[in-house]
Amino acid sequence: MPEIHEARRVRLAALVAGQGADAALVTHLVNVRYLTGLASSNAALLVRADGTAVLATDGRYAGTAARVCPDLECVVEREAAGVLAARAVGRLAYEAHDMTVERRDALAGELDGVELASLDRAVEELRTVKDEGEIGLLREACAITDRAFDAVLPSIRPGRTEREIAIELERTMVDLGAERPAFASIVASGPNGAIPHHVPGARAIESGDLVTMDFGALHEGYHADMTRTVVVGAAGGWEREIYDLVAAAQRAGVEAATPETATKNVDAAARDLIEAAGYGGEFPHGLGHGVGLEIHEAPLMGYDKTGKLMDRVPITVEPGVYVAGRGGVRIEDTLVVRADGAELLTKTTKELLVI
Amino acid sequence: MPEIHEARRVRLAALVAGQGADAALVTHLVNVRYLTGLASSNAALLVRADGTAVLATDGRYAGTAARVCPDLECVVEREAAGVLAARAVGRLAYEAHDMTVERRDALAGELDGVELASLDRAVEELRTVKDEGEIGLLREACAITDRAFDAVLPSIRPGRTEREIAIELERTMVDLGAERPAFASIVASGPNGAIPHHVPGARAIESGDLVTMDFGALHEGYHADMTRTVVVGAAGGWEREIYDLVAAAQRAGVEAATPETATKNVDAAARDLIEAAGYGGEFPHGLGHGVGLEIHEAPLMGYDKTGKLMDRVPITVEPGVYVAGRGGVRIEDTLVVRADGAELLTKTTKELLVI
Repeated sequence: MPEIHEARRVRLAALVAGQGADAALVTHLVNVRYLTGLASSNAALLVRADGTAVLATDGRYAGTAARVCPDLECVVEREAAGVLAARAVGRLAYEAHDMTVERRDALAGELDGVELASLDRAVEELRTVKDEGEIGLLREACAITDRAFDAVLPSIRPGRTEREIAIELERTMVDLGAERPAFASIVASGPNGAIPHHVPGARAIESGDLVTMDFGALHEGYHADMTRTVVVGAAGGWEREIYDLVAAAQRAGVEAATPETATKNVDAAARDLIEAAGYGGEFPHGLGHGVGLEIHEAPLMGYDKTGKLMDRVPITVEPGVYVAGRGGVRIEDTLVVRADGAELLTKTTKELLVI
Repeated sequence: MPEIHEARRVRLAALVAGQGADAALVTHLVNVRYLTGLASSNAALLVRADGTAVLATDGRYAGTAARVCPDLECVVEREAAGVLAARAVGRLAYEAHDMTVERRDALAGELDGVELASLDRAVEELRTVKDEGEIGLLREACAITDRAFDAVLPSIRPGRTEREIAIELERTMVDLGAERPAFASIVASGPNGAIPHHVPGARAIESGDLVTMDFGALHEGYHADMTRTVVVGAAGGWEREIYDLVAAAQRAGVEAATPETATKNVDAAARDLIEAAGYGGEFPHGLGHGVGLEIHEAPLMGYDKTGKLMDRVPITVEPGVYVAGRGGVRIEDTLVVRADGAELLTKTTKELLVI
C-alpha cells in the first residue's frame, strides 16, 4: 500500500519542518521499512520537508523496492546513506541514535555546505500509535503464538530439556506461518525460573517444576510477545501463591492500561499488589513495553518512566515474581490500548495450567 | 581459558599505548567476547595501556561473567559503557565504528577532563589471525555444515520449495549441535539462482534446475560458510559449462590463497578465469571474506581491495556465475590460509552432484 507509506512520510516531513531542517536522512532500517514498506539490510531514505522522498538500497533489493514502493525514486547504491546525503541541501537531520560516529564523520567530510543535526527519534514517535493495518498484523503474529503454545503444551513433561522445548516452540511457530521467532525464546524451569532472561539450557524438566515460556512469532515484520508459566505434576502452596499474585497483578496492569494514563501509573497498578504481598524485591523489571516493528519500542512502562499511553498503542503487560534458588512466575500478554478497554491480542488462558 | 583472553588484552594494551591513549573502551560486543570470553547482549570492557581491565555487564550476565572471566573485575550495571568511561582518565579510545553519535555525545557530556579519540578497528585487527583454538571451533562449525548438507541432500527433489529446504538445512544444523545458523540460509533454484543473495521462497524445485545452497553453522560463536550448487535430474550443456568454470575458478582461488599474497591477487586468480571465458560481467561480487566471530570480517577479497593474506587467517573463497533469467552457480569453501597450503574446513565434494 504505497499510499499508507506516503502518508507516513508526509507526517515525518511536518516534523522535519518543525525542527527547522530541510530534510531527514533515515538510516534505522526499521524506520526505512515503516516509511517505504521495504525490508532491507542496506537502505536509507531521504525525506524532504516538502514531503518528497528518495530511497537508496543496493542491487540485491532493487527489484523488491520497485515492487513495494513504485512511487518512490530509488537510487541503487551500496553506500545508501552517503548517496542520499550528497543530494541534501541546507540543514540535514540524521538519526543520531542509529548512526555510528565513524559513519557520521565520513558523511560530514563528504558534504559541502550541508549542516548536520539530530532528527532525534521522530520516526519512532510516529511509529508509537499504530494504524489498524499494523494492529491486524500484530493480531496474526499473536494468533500464531497462541497456536504454538497449544501445540507444544503436551511436550512439557519430565525429562524434556528447556532447550528442546524452546526449539519446538520456535519450529512450531515457523510451521504455523511465522517468518521466524520474534526474539530468542526463553524456557526456564524449576530454579532457573528465578532468572528473568534465562537462556534455555540442558536442564531437564522435573515433576513439580514451574516452567516459564516467553516467546512470540514474527509476522510481516511485527512482533508478538507472550509469557506463560505452567506447573508440572502438581502445584504446591508456594507456587500457587505467587502464581495467583502475579495473575492478579497482570490483570490490574491490563485494566489500568487506558488512553491518557501515565505509564508509571500502569506499572504501579501491578507493582503495588506485588509490593503489598511482600514480593516487591522479587519484581526487578518494568511492567512492559511497546511492541511493533521492534520487539521493544516506546512506551516503556516502569516506576521511573515518563510519558502516557494513547489509543491504538500496542504494549506488553508482564509482571513477574522471581524467588532466587526456587523459581519464578511471569505472565505476559500483548495487547492494544483502546478507549473502551484493552484489546488482548494474546488469548491463551491465564489460569494456572497443571500439566 | 582466562589466560588466552588476558593475552589478547595485553596485545590490545600495546596497541592502545602505541596510539598514545590511556585506555580503550571496547563496546562492539563481539570484541568484548574476544577479549573476555563473555557472550553478552549488553557489556563493555575498559582495557588500560598497562594491560589491566574492567568489565561491565548487566545483572543477567553477572553469573556467567564470574564463571567465564573470574580474573576480571566486573561491574554489574546496565549502562555498561558509561560506568566504565567514568573510570577513565586522560585519553580514552572508543570504537567509533560501533558507538552511535547519540551515545558518544552522552558519554562526552558525562566525562570531565577525559579526551575521547577513536580506537579505530584495533580489536578487529587482532582478531584477523586466529589461534589454533579458534580454528578448532571453526573446524567443528564447518563439520556440522558438511553433515547437514549430506543429511538434506535426499530432500532436494522436484516439488519441494526453496523455503522448505532452507528450513530443513537450518533445523538439521541445530539437531547436529549448532548453536544456530550462522546467517540466513540461501536456497536459490532455477532462475532464482541468478540472484546472489536470493531469499528462499515458495518456488518449487523443478527437474533440470540448478539449486544453490549457501549456509553454515554457528558453533561457540564461530561461523561456518559454505555454498554448493547441485543439479536436479540432469545437467544440460549450459549448466555444466558454467559449473566447470566456477569450480576451476574456485580451485584457482584456493591455490592462490597463501600467506603474504595480496587479497586482490587472490581475487584475480579466480576472476581472470571467469573473465577469459566471457562471464566477467556475471561475477559481480568479491571472491570472499574473512570469517570468525563475525560472518564477514577482515580481510575482504576483491579486485578493489587492499591488504594481504597471512598465516592462520580463515577466509571464504566463493566465486559465482549468475546468468540473468536462467540461473547460476556458486561454490564456496571456508578454509584457513597456511604456509604449506590452504586447509579446507568445509569438505563437501565439489564434483557436480546430479540428484
